Amino acid sequence: VRLDAQNLGSLARGCALLGAGGGGDPELGLSMALMAVEEHGPVEVVALENLDDDALIMPCGLVGSPALASEKVWGGDEGRTLRNAVERLRAEPVAALMCYSQAGANGLLPVMWAARIGLPLVDADGMGRAFPELQQQAMHLADVPASPVVVTDGRGNAQVLYSADDAWAERMARSAAACFGGVCAGALYCLTALEARDAAISRSLSRAVGIGEALSADAVSDRIDALCELHDAVVVIEGRIVSVERRAPEGFVHGSATIQEDAPGARQLRLELQNEFLLAIEDGAVRAAVPDLISVLSTDTGNPIATERLRRGEHVVVVSTPAPAPWLSPAGLAVAGPAAFGYDVDYTPSVQGVTDARR
Amino acid sequence: VRLDAQNLGSLARGCALLGAGGGGDPELGLSMALMAVEEHGPVEVVALENLDDDALIMPCGLVGSPALASEKVWGGDEGRTLRNAVERLRAEPVAALMCYSQAGANGLLPVMWAARIGLPLVDADGMGRAFPELQQQAMHLADVPASPVVVTDGRGNAQVLYSADDAWAERMARSAAACFGGVCAGALYCLTALEARDAAISRSLSRAVGIGEALSADAVSDRIDALCELHDAVVVIEGRIVSVERRAPEGFVHGSATIQEDAPGARQLRLELQNEFLLAIEDGAVRAAVPDLISVLSTDTGNPIATERLRRGEHVVVVSTPAPAPWLSPAGLAVAGPAAFGYDVDYTPSVQGVTDARR
Repeated sequence: VRLDAQNLGSLARGCALLGAGGGGDPELGLSMALMAVEEHGPVEVVALENLDDDALIMPCGLVGSPALASEKVWGGDEGRTLRNAVERLRAEPVAALMCYSQAGANGLLPVMWAARIGLPLVDADGMGRAFPELQQQAMHLADVPASPVVVTDGRGNAQVLYSADDAWAERMARSAAACFGGVCAGALYCLTALEARDAAISRSLSRAVGIGEALSADAVSDRIDALCELHDAVVVIEGRIVSVERRAPEGFVHGSATIQEDAPGARQLRLELQNEFLLAIEDGAVRAAVPDLISVLSTDTGNPIATERLRRGEHVVVVSTPAPAPWLSPAGLAVAGPAAFGYDVDYTPSVQGVTDARR
Repeated sequence: VRLDAQNLGSLARGCALLGAGGGGDPELGLSMALMAVEEHGPVEVVALENLDDDALIMPCGLVGSPALASEKVWGGDEGRTLRNAVERLRAEPVAALMCYSQAGANGLLPVMWAARIGLPLVDADGMGRAFPELQQQAMHLADVPASPVVVTDGRGNAQVLYSADDAWAERMARSAAACFGGVCAGALYCLTALEARDAAISRSLSRAVGIGEALSADAVSDRIDALCELHDAVVVIEGRIVSVERRAPEGFVHGSATIQEDAPGARQLRLELQNEFLLAIEDGAVRAAVPDLISVLSTDTGNPIATERLRRGEHVVVVSTPAPAPWLSPAGLAVAGPAAFGYDVDYTPSVQGVTDARR
């Protein structure tokens, strides 16, 4: 597989859905990735099993506030700075980049970087979706250390952060991003292909492209059908947004939204959000919960809507997609389940909310 | 010269005066340095001309708020962490440590580190006094880069900060200190002995010990006399503190204090302070100005008083000591003259304020 002008649009649509409302707008990253492949040629996508055991993989993406990522002027050479720093630290060449999160802006920026430095991109990632914290990575669950974390503003300033404690690495990285104006580029959890075969989430990039293709159907209902049939999504509710509550301290979005069904029954669903949509609650019962992906699509445009773009009055369909397997283990749920976000509810697999009669 | 239980007390007194009201309380550093030399033996002090040209010198001290430095629990191994990181970065051994500022707490912490890792301390520093910003270094004037800056909390977390711009290095270091609770240990402006002979301020450590010995006389007037006769100090005023205005946003002290002479003439002097005493103004005229050192001594105890310890009603003598030569160049004044601190006045050499008839 290669990423080029033909399939980058699908990748971006897939990343928008996998962002589960967060991860930053993929549009700016898409533009930059398109320019980069036009100038430097397509980006090779390589499966983990096709890399040498000791090939060094550099997971990368943005660090800091994804909401600020589309306001930042990316120079394009951030990936090269990160790669050079990692090669200096490891004293060996980087064989391939990997999106640490194949979602939102994080699913596209590394495509631009890979194109510009002429390296392949691995068909895997560390999250299989978007999460707000850098230690919410499958690599963290597999005991691959985040450190040394490299961050750069792409303007000649860089930091290398060392800690044996991934939570401290996250704290230092966030502080560095704040120093760089709220968002910057970062590489972390660098690992060999041998390690990644166990530690990373395989096929994330193919999955994102596949989901993006499902979202390319003309009719919105065909898009939803394809998501459900090909990607195990379930529809949680379809209706109108009747209220949105949101605040964004330090660029991180927190809040909730309520969606009311049009039908006579008038079911109501409350979405809890923190950058991403994290819980879907109906009559006090959990209908979908993180780490499963909760995505909100406009029934007008058929496109996923980011948490910071929700508007009252908009007609939407809420779909939930199963979390990648590592997140459903006890360790995975401890790091990225509802309790990790401060919600006093247990994870339960997502529940179909609309009967087949709907369509 | 060696630093041991006999002369560390003098070093600490000298560092208190050279702090010019800032640089952090040397007392905690003194206790830790005394314990370290008791356990590991005295610290050798080496002159710059006695080091091999290519000997690597690691300037170090605290980064962040000096006011918080005495509240931090220093583990003692911060220097070792810094040294190990610098040796990894430079791929060569560190030959000696240097206080980046031979003043306040910064003049003592590196003594403890040197004792614990068994390295000598260079008889030189980067400031010849205390300054609030890390780019206010003679090495900066000599175009030795601050970067890579290494900082650590001494608890297993470390950061290496890269920038060609010393102001950005300072900004990143300050942000890292904030992430570490407001203060941490740092190494920066690493350089060879050959470079240091031009770039650093020589004999700072001997000077601090000499000033400390002057401050060891029993009678306060003898201390002042010795400062004036042996260390070119001038007495600016002697009187009572009649007002103190001070605020400490983010641990950095800002404010002013007014001192009124006891004598019938009743001269009044206003001190402007930002961590350090920066200006002494009488009737609108500058009597002493940064980069000259302005120090306030209690006439009761004969000891220097830190800006954050000034109390109304206290009887004090204000002395000014000449700045090391690099600060009096146009480049030096641009970095550390009154204008660098936001004061719209020109530097003028300090003026004797009390006639010899006083004593």
